[in-house]
Parts: sequence; C-alpha cells; structure tokens
Amino acid sequence: MELLFLGTGAGIPAKLRNVTSIALKLLEERKTVWLFDCGEATQHQILHTALKPRRIEKIFITHLHGDHIFGLPGLLGSRSFQSGDTELTIYGPKGLRQFIVVSLQISDTHLQYPLKIVEIEDGVIFEDDQFIVEAAKLDHAVESFGYRIIEKDKPGTLNAKKLQEEGVPPGPIYAKLKKGESVELENNKIIHGGDYLGPTIKGRIITILGDTRTCENAVKLASNADILVHESTFSADSEEMAYEYFHSTTSQAAKTAKRADVNVLCLTHISSRYGLEDSKQLVKEAKSIFPNTYIAHDFFEIEIPTRK
Amino acid sequence: MELLFLGTGAGIPAKLRNVTSIALKLLEERKTVWLFDCGEATQHQILHTALKPRRIEKIFITHLHGDHIFGLPGLLGSRSFQSGDTELTIYGPKGLRQFIVVSLQISDTHLQYPLKIVEIEDGVIFEDDQFIVEAAKLDHAVESFGYRIIEKDKPGTLNAKKLQEEGVPPGPIYAKLKKGESVELENNKIIHGGDYLGPTIKGRIITILGDTRTCENAVKLASNADILVHESTFSADSEEMAYEYFHSTTSQAAKTAKRADVNVLCLTHISSRYGLEDSKQLVKEAKSIFPNTYIAHDFFEIEIPTRK
Ligand SMILES: [Zn+2]
Ligand SMILES: [Zn+2]
Repeated sequence: MELLFLGTGAGIPAKLRNVTSIALKLLEERKTVWLFDCGEATQHQILHTALKPRRIEKIFITHLHGDHIFGLPGLLGSRSFQSGDTELTIYGPKGLRQFIVVSLQISDTHLQYPLKIVEIEDGVIFEDDQFIVEAAKLDHAVESFGYRIIEKDKPGTLNAKKLQEEGVPPGPIYAKLKKGESVELENNKIIHGGDYLGPTIKGRIITILGDTRTCENAVKLASNADILVHESTFSADSEEMAYEYFHSTTSQAAKTAKRADVNVLCLTHISSRYGLEDSKQLVKEAKSIFPNTYIAHDFFEIEIPTRK
Repeated sequence: MELLFLGTGAGIPAKLRNVTSIALKLLEERKTVWLFDCGEATQHQILHTALKPRRIEKIFITHLHGDHIFGLPGLLGSRSFQSGDTELTIYGPKGLRQFIVVSLQISDTHLQYPLKIVEIEDGVIFEDDQFIVEAAKLDHAVESFGYRIIEKDKPGTLNAKKLQEEGVPPGPIYAKLKKGESVELENNKIIHGGDYLGPTIKGRIITILGDTRTCENAVKLASNADILVHESTFSADSEEMAYEYFHSTTSQAAKTAKRADVNVLCLTHISSRYGLEDSKQLVKEAKSIFPNTYIAHDFFEIEIPTRK
C-alpha cells in the first residue's frame, strides 16, 4: 500500500507541480488503484508512472473546483480506449454527475465499461470485507470532503503445523478455525480457533482531505491515522490569506496532525508562488509543530507500512 | 505570422505527442494569438512556450471529440487567473456552449473577462478589416469543421518622399491617398493615390481542417492556400482503416493539397501507433504526391511568409 502523488500544486498547473491528483496503490491488497481527485492532465502524469488506467477501480473527488476535476473526462475516455473493461465508481459532491454526463455526451465518448457515479453525503460511503471509507465535509469555498479510508483488521495466520501435530487433519474446519470459531472434533473435543491463530494484523487508516481551512472535521477524519494528507497552500506567515481563500498554512496542517495524533503528515496542494527551493522552509514550518512531516512533489511516493 | 503546433497526436495523449491544439500567432498583425482546438493539457503545453494565455483572442474548435476540447475549461480558468481581461470568442459546433457553461458552472469558475461562444454553421463566421474566416463541414463521425482564414490585402506603402517632392505637404490627405483615393489639391490639381502607392501586399490564406475523410469541402477550403494543415492519422497503406474511423492517410492529405494547389502542406494528428522513427516514412509518403510537405511535432513552428 503506497500513496503516489500525481499532482501537488494548487489552482493552476505550473511547470513544477501539476494540479491535484493522488493514487492510493492497493496492488497487493486488491490489485487495484484508487484515485483521489483528478485535475487536468492527470492521465498525462500517469503516462510517466507504472500505473495502468484500467487498474483504477474507484475515484474519490474531494470538491468540484477545476483543478480537482478537469482531468476526469479525458481519463475516463482513455481508460476505455486502453481496454479497461471493469466497473469504475466515482464518488464526489453533488454536481459531479452532471459534469461527467455532459462531458461524455457532448464529446460522443462511449465507455466500454460500467461507470457508477455516487454523489455523497457525510458518513460511510463504501464498505466491503476489506475497507470502509468515510466522508465528512470540510470548510472550503465550495462543498469539500475529506476521506478516511479504514482497512479492516485481518485475522492472524492459522498455525497448521500445530494443528497437525495435535492430530487435526486439514479440512473444512480449518476455514472455521481461521475465522476464530470453535469447532467440535470427531472425538468430541472442542478446540478454539483463537488458540491456533497468530496475532491479528491491524488495518491501516489513510486520511486524505480536500481543500480546507482548519476545522474540527479534519481532526476527526484524521484521528489516529497512519497517514494524513493535508493541503498546505500557504506558508505559516500567510494565515490571513489562507483564511480569505479557504485554505490552510503549513503550520495549520501540522496542528491538525498533532491534535489527531497521526503517524505521518504529508503536505500537498502547494501554491505556485513557492519554488522548489522553498520546500525546505515549508516543511520546516510544519516539522516545528509535527516532526514526522513530509512535503509531496509530483511523483513522490510513500509507503504505508503494516501496523505492528 | 506563424503556426505553432501545441499538440499533434490523435485520440489520446502519449508521451511523444499531446492531443490536438494549434496556435496561429498574429503578434505582428494584431498582437494576439488564435487557437485551433484545445485538447487536454493544452495549457500545460503553453507553459513550455512564450505564448501568454491572455493574448489568446479567439479559439476555433473543429469538432467536439474529447481530444479537441477537454483542455478548454482549464485554459479558460487559467486565462482569468493570469489576469487576462480582454474579450475571448470561441467558435465551434453546436453543443460547445453547453460543455463550456456546465464545466464553468459546476467548477464555480468565474471569468474576469467577457466570454463569447458562437455555435457556427457553414459560411463566413468572422470578418473585420484584417481577416475573414470561413467554415465548412468536413466528413467525420461527428460534425467537424475546417477553417479558411483569409488575410485581406493591404495597400502598398505610400511614397511620401515623392509627394513632398511634388509639393504635397503631409496632412489628412495622405490618409486618403493611402487608401487609394483621388484628392483635389488647393491648386485644383487632382492626384490619384494609386500613383503614389507601392505594390499591394497580398493577404495570406491559412487552412486548418478538423478530423476528416477525404472530401470536396477540404479541397474548397484549401484552394490556393499558403498553408494547409491536414490531419493524417494513418499511413498510406491504411486507407481502409482511415475510412472506417473517419480519418485520412498521409497520401490522402497530399492528394487534397495537390488538388487545392496549396503552397505548403503540414501533416498533424498522427496516431500514437507511429513512433518518432516513423515520421520520416510518413512524410515521404506525402512528399511522393505533394513535395512541399512537413510533418508537425509538438512545438513545431512554421512561418507563413508574406506573399510576393
Ligand atoms: Zn484546489
Ligand atoms: Zn481527433
């Protein structure tokens, strides 16, 4: 499980940073990729990575500003052109459906795969046996969501060697034991799955926020996360400007990370007023409040290790 | 007057060629740039040139396929962000207005300049004292236009030295003479502008076609043009495929150039199946029919010299 930043800029594309998109690589977990936001030329950025558009299973849109959605129609079309045929689901604020439907209709784009568009509200927006995704509104000029991706705990590995040593041959009861259930053997002895399982593998929590001012929902979504991706449009000394434009500064992002007690903070959505040489200063501002901070750049990749 | 190719690929973006956009640089003529088509990431391509989005005065869309329009919403927004405040007019097929209006509304994009959208039919779509632009339908899977840009002839330079030698002092009558009019002097002598003007400066003709099969309107639009920009999605041996997908081959483009008796042919909209090493072969195929042929690549620039 890795986060790969495809675009880390704010507002308009620049040579240094493209507009926003982040890929959550779930190749080991489910052989797919989830995308968060899709600014213009996200598909162009993907051309410079090993990602395959047909692997994209879900796209989560935080808000409908152009720098977060104008790459959607092109990517949807190219995924079809490049023989993507599995279902794709897009989640995002109300209005998303109209933008996608009109763009595809006007351009006479016919997708060769089923497309589902889900206009969301706060709460659980997706759950299966591996993941839960929760959304909550942040504080931005337009409706903007943050996403909390919760990987479910997995049972530890079954100790088959021990079972066989105790004369329990492999069979359907192994599946029950693996789920932690108790089973009665032929000799009427009852054994408990828990006695043959290694420690539970704890699921991870990834929090990815849309554009926002500092707000309580950001802290809630990020609570105890393994990684928090937070916008950081401005430097610490520009709090007034950040407030005026409904954005955050480096130190505001760091304060949220600290309050939420996350493991890693990753700053992105950096204004084009800052050059490459400013990144050190920006990350330093955040680190003075929350030491375990990174600043993303286009194609920056960070692993989210399994919890111990 | 130059043509600068911003994207020369077909269908989907590739590392070698971005999707279609061409800039007609009219910096000397009117201090502006006209854009033809605006595929995704056209504004990104512009970042690598000396073009300024605020200089773009008109955008002509040939047809509504995604590879020709998905860069529009982003470019319109960025032009505003980068303090473009002069009127911009976009011409194109029916449906263009809905795509632009919905994209800007959904993304809450507020332009700081007047935007005019003109949904066109065949005929003269623009005329002022410098240029006439004509449009005509081609033969493609969706409504696709070609554009013929006609620069008006300009009167030759007025020979002020000769006038002064003949005792005609500078004044308002010089303006009349410059237009070729006859004027009566104070001594009742009548003189004719034509006698004091250098040779007329002939206007140029630029023809830029949207995606198309070979068709009669292509020849009409290109008749006698200084330069014809023609799509050439496929190589000469793929005529069947070109027909099936409503496109042209290298040799079909060359035949149209020959029949229209143009000066220069420039091939673009090259399928991503062809690599850089194939360009020589593609242009050779066209040259065997129409020798004065170029094949465009991204950022290829060609001057359109004044007619002699
Ligand atoms: Zn943004
Ligand atoms: Zn095309």
